Amino acid sequence: MSTKDGVATVDDEEVTDIIAQRVPYWDPPTVEPLDTNELAEWSLYRALIGEFTASLILVYVSIATVIGYKFQSSGSDERCTGVGYLGVAWSFGATVSVLVYSTSGVSGGHINPAVSFALFLAGKVSLARAALYVVAQCLGAICGVGIVKGIMKHPFDSLGGGANAVAEGYSLGAALGAETFGTFVLVYTVFSATDPKRTARDAFVPLVAALPIGLAVFVVHLATIPITGTGINPARSLGAAVLYNHPKTWEQHWIFWVGPFIGAALAVFYHKIVLRDIAVVKEALLGLGSFKRTSSSA
Amino acid sequence: MSTKDGVATVDDEEVTDIIAQRVPYWDPPTVEPLDTNELAEWSLYRALIGEFTASLILVYVSIATVIGYKFQSSGSDERCTGVGYLGVAWSFGATVSVLVYSTSGVSGGHINPAVSFALFLAGKVSLARAALYVVAQCLGAICGVGIVKGIMKHPFDSLGGGANAVAEGYSLGAALGAETFGTFVLVYTVFSATDPKRTARDAFVPLVAALPIGLAVFVVHLATIPITGTGINPARSLGAAVLYNHPKTWEQHWIFWVGPFIGAALAVFYHKIVLRDIAVVKEALLGLGSFKRTSSSA
Amino acid sequence: MSTKDGVATVDDEEVTDIIAQRVPYWDPPTVEPLDTNELAEWSLYRALIGEFTASLILVYVSIATVIGYKFQSSGSDERCTGVGYLGVAWSFGATVSVLVYSTSGVSGGHINPAVSFALFLAGKVSLARAALYVVAQCLGAICGVGIVKGIMKHPFDSLGGGANAVAEGYSLGAALGAETFGTFVLVYTVFSATDPKRTARDAFVPLVAALPIGLAVFVVHLATIPITGTGINPARSLGAAVLYNHPKTWEQHWIFWVGPFIGAALAVFYHKIVLRDIAVVKEALLGLGSFKRTSSSA
Amino acid sequence: MSTKDGVATVDDEEVTDIIAQRVPYWDPPTVEPLDTNELAEWSLYRALIGEFTASLILVYVSIATVIGYKFQSSGSDERCTGVGYLGVAWSFGATVSVLVYSTSGVSGGHINPAVSFALFLAGKVSLARAALYVVAQCLGAICGVGIVKGIMKHPFDSLGGGANAVAEGYSLGAALGAETFGTFVLVYTVFSATDPKRTARDAFVPLVAALPIGLAVFVVHLATIPITGTGINPARSLGAAVLYNHPKTWEQHWIFWVGPFIGAALAVFYHKIVLRDIAVVKEALLGLGSFKRTSSSA
Repeated sequence: MSTKDGVATVDDEEVTDIIAQRVPYWDPPTVEPLDTNELAEWSLYRALIGEFTASLILVYVSIATVIGYKFQSSGSDERCTGVGYLGVAWSFGATVSVLVYSTSGVSGGHINPAVSFALFLAGKVSLARAALYVVAQCLGAICGVGIVKGIMKHPFDSLGGGANAVAEGYSLGAALGAETFGTFVLVYTVFSATDPKRTARDAFVPLVAALPIGLAVFVVHLATIPITGTGINPARSLGAAVLYNHPKTWEQHWIFWVGPFIGAALAVFYHKIVLRDIAVVKEALLGLGSFKRTSSSA
Repeated sequence: MSTKDGVATVDDEEVTDIIAQRVPYWDPPTVEPLDTNELAEWSLYRALIGEFTASLILVYVSIATVIGYKFQSSGSDERCTGVGYLGVAWSFGATVSVLVYSTSGVSGGHINPAVSFALFLAGKVSLARAALYVVAQCLGAICGVGIVKGIMKHPFDSLGGGANAVAEGYSLGAALGAETFGTFVLVYTVFSATDPKRTARDAFVPLVAALPIGLAVFVVHLATIPITGTGINPARSLGAAVLYNHPKTWEQHWIFWVGPFIGAALAVFYHKIVLRDIAVVKEALLGLGSFKRTSSSA
Repeated sequence: MSTKDGVATVDDEEVTDIIAQRVPYWDPPTVEPLDTNELAEWSLYRALIGEFTASLILVYVSIATVIGYKFQSSGSDERCTGVGYLGVAWSFGATVSVLVYSTSGVSGGHINPAVSFALFLAGKVSLARAALYVVAQCLGAICGVGIVKGIMKHPFDSLGGGANAVAEGYSLGAALGAETFGTFVLVYTVFSATDPKRTARDAFVPLVAALPIGLAVFVVHLATIPITGTGINPARSLGAAVLYNHPKTWEQHWIFWVGPFIGAALAVFYHKIVLRDIAVVKEALLGLGSFKRTSSSA
Repeated sequence: MSTKDGVATVDDEEVTDIIAQRVPYWDPPTVEPLDTNELAEWSLYRALIGEFTASLILVYVSIATVIGYKFQSSGSDERCTGVGYLGVAWSFGATVSVLVYSTSGVSGGHINPAVSFALFLAGKVSLARAALYVVAQCLGAICGVGIVKGIMKHPFDSLGGGANAVAEGYSLGAALGAETFGTFVLVYTVFSATDPKRTARDAFVPLVAALPIGLAVFVVHLATIPITGTGINPARSLGAAVLYNHPKTWEQHWIFWVGPFIGAALAVFYHKIVLRDIAVVKEALLGLGSFKRTSSSA
C-alpha cells in the first residue's frame, strides 16, 4: 500500500495483488507411494477414526432415508408425503457436504474408497494410508447400515436394505458405465476443489469446497438412482450388501467397485491431461502473484 | 513478501503463509464451570433474549410447515402439491442455518438445549449460562408453537400439533437410538464447525459454519422423520408437547430429552477422543503458521 | 508478525488479531432522514433502475413458477411431476438470494418495500430514497407479472394469477399475523446479515449474506403458503393484484401492506432493543480488535 | 494499524480499510475482439478441453435426470417417488454450480454458448476464443446426450430424449420470450458475479460466485420447464436435438439459439446502461479504498 502525504491509496497493482493472494493453488510435493513412516504417527490413527466415524454417519443417515421413504411410499395414503428420490439424493449429497466440511481437518475428508484410490494415484497419499482408509471406510459403512437395520428391523429386510442393484431394463454394461461416469464427476469435482491441499495428513480442504463436492454427489444421485440406486462409493455399497446379504446383491457387487475405481482413475488421468505438465501450470498460477508492481512494504 | 529490484514476488513459503493464515483453529481457555460473574453482565441477558427469539422463530416456522403440509395432504386433490417430509426437513434445516447465522454474534447461536449442554460439557460455557439458555430456549419454543396454534387453530389440534412421537412399528429403544444418533451428528457438526470460537459470550461462529450446521439438521430430519418425527432439540419437542398436551405425547416425552443429551455427550466425548490431547493438536495446527520462511517484514 | 532469527512465527495474540479482522461489524453514521441531496446524484437513479429490474425478475420467475405448477397439477396424470409448494418456496427464496447477491453493489439489494421501509426506520436510508425505491419495486413487480400474463395468458387468468389471498379456514387476523411474523423473520435476517453495511448508496452487503436472506424467504414461504400464499413483499402482492384484478384480491390487499410493514417495524424495534445502546455494542465489537498484543509492525 | 505504547488498535478508518479490501471489483482492459495471438497458446486448447468436458458432464447428468424421472412417472405406483420437475431444475442448477466452480480456473467456466457470446459482446473474450468455446460446448453436449442414449436406450427414444420443445398451449412467441428472459436472468447473474474477473484466459471467477450462478439456472428452470422444458443453453438444446433427431424438434430449434442470444445481448446492454460510463463506476468503487486514513505502515 503506497502512502502519499500520510494517506494510503489502493492502486491497480495492489488490487491485482489482493486478487492474487486469493488464488489458492499451491501444489505440494508428491507423496512417496510406499512411504510407511507415517504408520508411526498418531495423526494417521486419528484420521482412521475420523474416516470410520464419517463413513458410519454417511451411511446411517442416507440408508435410513432410503428405507424410510420406501416405507412411506408403501402406504397408499402417505405416498406423496415421502421424500422420494429427490430426498434420497439430497440425503447423500448434503451429508457428504457436512462430513467433508467436518472431517477435512482430521483425515482430509475422503469418506469414499474411490476418492482415497484417486488421491493415491495422484500421489497425494501413500499406499499404506489409502489402504487403511479404505478399510476404515468399509468398517464404518458396515456399522452404519447395522445401526439402520437395528432401528428399522422390519422395513429394512422387506424393502431391499438400501442395497445397490441394476434396475430392470438396464444391462450390466449400462450400470457399469453409469457408476464409472458418476464417480468420474465426483472425483473430478474433488480434484478441482482441493487443488491447494497439502498431504492428506495436514490436508487443507478449503471449507468452501465442501459444498460443490456435496452438490456433485447430489446431482449424480439424481441422474443415477433410476439405473443402479447410485453407488459411486464402494464402502456404501459394501455396507448395504453385507447387512442385506442376498445372492443377487453379491452377484452384481463387483460393479460397485470396478465402476467407481475406473471412474476415479479416469478423473486422475483427465486432471493430468488437462493440466498436462504440472510444473508449467503451477508456474502460470503462481505467476499471478508476481505481476510487476511496487512493493507493498517499500 | 520479499522485494527484488522494487518488484515483490510471492514465493512458496509465502503461499504456505497465506494458507496458514486461513487455518481458523485457535482454542480459547476453558470456561470456569461454576463461574457466576457473567450474571452481572448485560450481554448475558441480551444473549438470553436472542436465544428466546431465535427458538420462537425456529419453532414457529417449522411447526407451521408441519401443520400446513398435513392440512394439504388431507385434501385428496392437493395431495401432491404439499411440501411433504422433504419440505419439513428443509424447513427445520434452513431455518436453523439462518438463525445460527443471525444469532451467532449475540448468543453464540445455540437455539437447542442439547447444543448448550454439549458446550457446557466441553467447557465452552458456564453452568449458569447453559441453564439459563435452556430456559430461554424452552420458553421461546412454547411461545412459537403458541403462535402457530393461534393462527392455525383447527388443523393444529386435529393434525397432531407437530408433537414428536414414536411412529407405529418402532420400539421405544429404536426411537431413543435414532434421537441419540441424530443429535450426535448435529453436535459433532457444531463442534467441527465452531472450533475456533472463543467463549460463548463473544462467540465467533464463523459465518460460513451456519450452512453445514443447517444441512446437518436437514439430513437428520430426512433420516429420522419416519421414526420419531425428529426431535434432536428438546426445546422444540417440549414446545409442541405443551401446546398439544396429549397424554401419549407426555408419556414419550423423556425420549426427546434423554436421547439428545446422550447424543450430545457422545459427540463431546468423541471430539475429545479424536483430538486426544487438545494441547498436542493445538500445537500441530498452530505449527502450520511457523514453517521456516523469510520474514514478511524483514 | 514477530520475527526471531529471520523466522516469522504466529503467536496467540496474532491469531486473535486474524480472527478480529474477520469481525465485519462497523456501524456507519445514521442517514439524515429528510436528506434530499442525493436526488442530484446519478447513483440514486442507477439504484432505482437496479431495484426496478430486480423486482421485475423476482416476480417474473416466481409467479411463472406458481402458474406453471398449478397448470401441471390440473392435469391428473402429471400431478406428481409438478414442483409443488416446495418448488414455489424455492423459487422465491433462491431468486431473492441471487438478486440480493447481484444487486447489492448497485442499490443495496432491497427488492422489497418492507425492507426499504425497515432500512428507513433504522436510519440507513433517507425517506426520499426509501420512497423512490418502493415506487421502483412496485413498477418492476407490475411489469414482471405483466410478462408472465403475456406468456402464460390462459393459465394465468384461470389459475388465480399468483395473487395472494387468505386461504379458506383462516381468519383475516390469522393472515395478518402470518404476514407480520413472516416479514419479521425476513427483516430480522436482513439486519443480522447486513450490519456492517454503510449507506445504501455504497452499500456493502457482504456477498455471503445473500444466502441466509434467500433461505429466510424460502422457509417463510414453506410456513406461510398454506395460509396466504405468502406475501411478505408488498410489491409482489401489488403486481399480482394489478394484473389479476379481481375484487376479492383488492379487498384483502391491505393485509399484504400492513402485515409486512408492521413486521418490518417490529424487526427494527427488536434489533434496537437487543442491541440496546448501539454505541455500547459497537464498542464491545470493535474492542475485539484492540486486545493487548505486540504490534505487528513494531 | 496504528501503535500506541506497543499496543496496536484498530480504529474506524482501518475498519473501512478492511471492508474496502474485500470489495472485489476491478475491471481489466477490454480484449481485442479480433485478437488471434492466443491461438498459439496451449492454455486456449486446455480451456477448450475444459469446456468440452464440462458441457459433456452437464448434459449427461441433467438429461439422464430428465429421462429417469419420466421413466419413473410412467409407472403408476412409482409416480410420487420420481424427482419431478423440481428434481430436474435442481439437476441443471446444481450441476452448473459445480462445473462453474470446477472449471473457472481452466476456461472461465462458460459451459454455455450464450455466456460465451455475452462475454464476447462485453469485450471479455476475443471472437476466436468465443467461437471455439461454442464449438467445444456443442461437441461436448452432443457426446453427453450420446452417453445417456447409450445407457438408457429404450426410455431415451420413447420419452422425448430430453429435447426442448414448445409445450402445448404456448405460442412460438411465448416460448421465444421465455427463453430470452430466462437467459437474460442467467447472464445478468453471471455478469454481476464475475465483475472482477480478468480476461477469460486467467479468469478469476470468485469461487463464491458459482453458487448464485447455479441458483439462477435453477430458478429459471422452475419458471420455464412448463413452457419449453427450458433451454437457455443452445449447446444443451443442440445435443438433445441431434440425438433425438425428430422433425418437430428441428423445426423449433432456432428458438433455442435466437432466444438465448437475444437474452444474452440484452443482459450485456443492461449491464452497460446501469453501469453507464464504466470508468466513473470503477472510480467510485476503487474510491472506497482511498478514504482518508492514517497509513498502516507509516
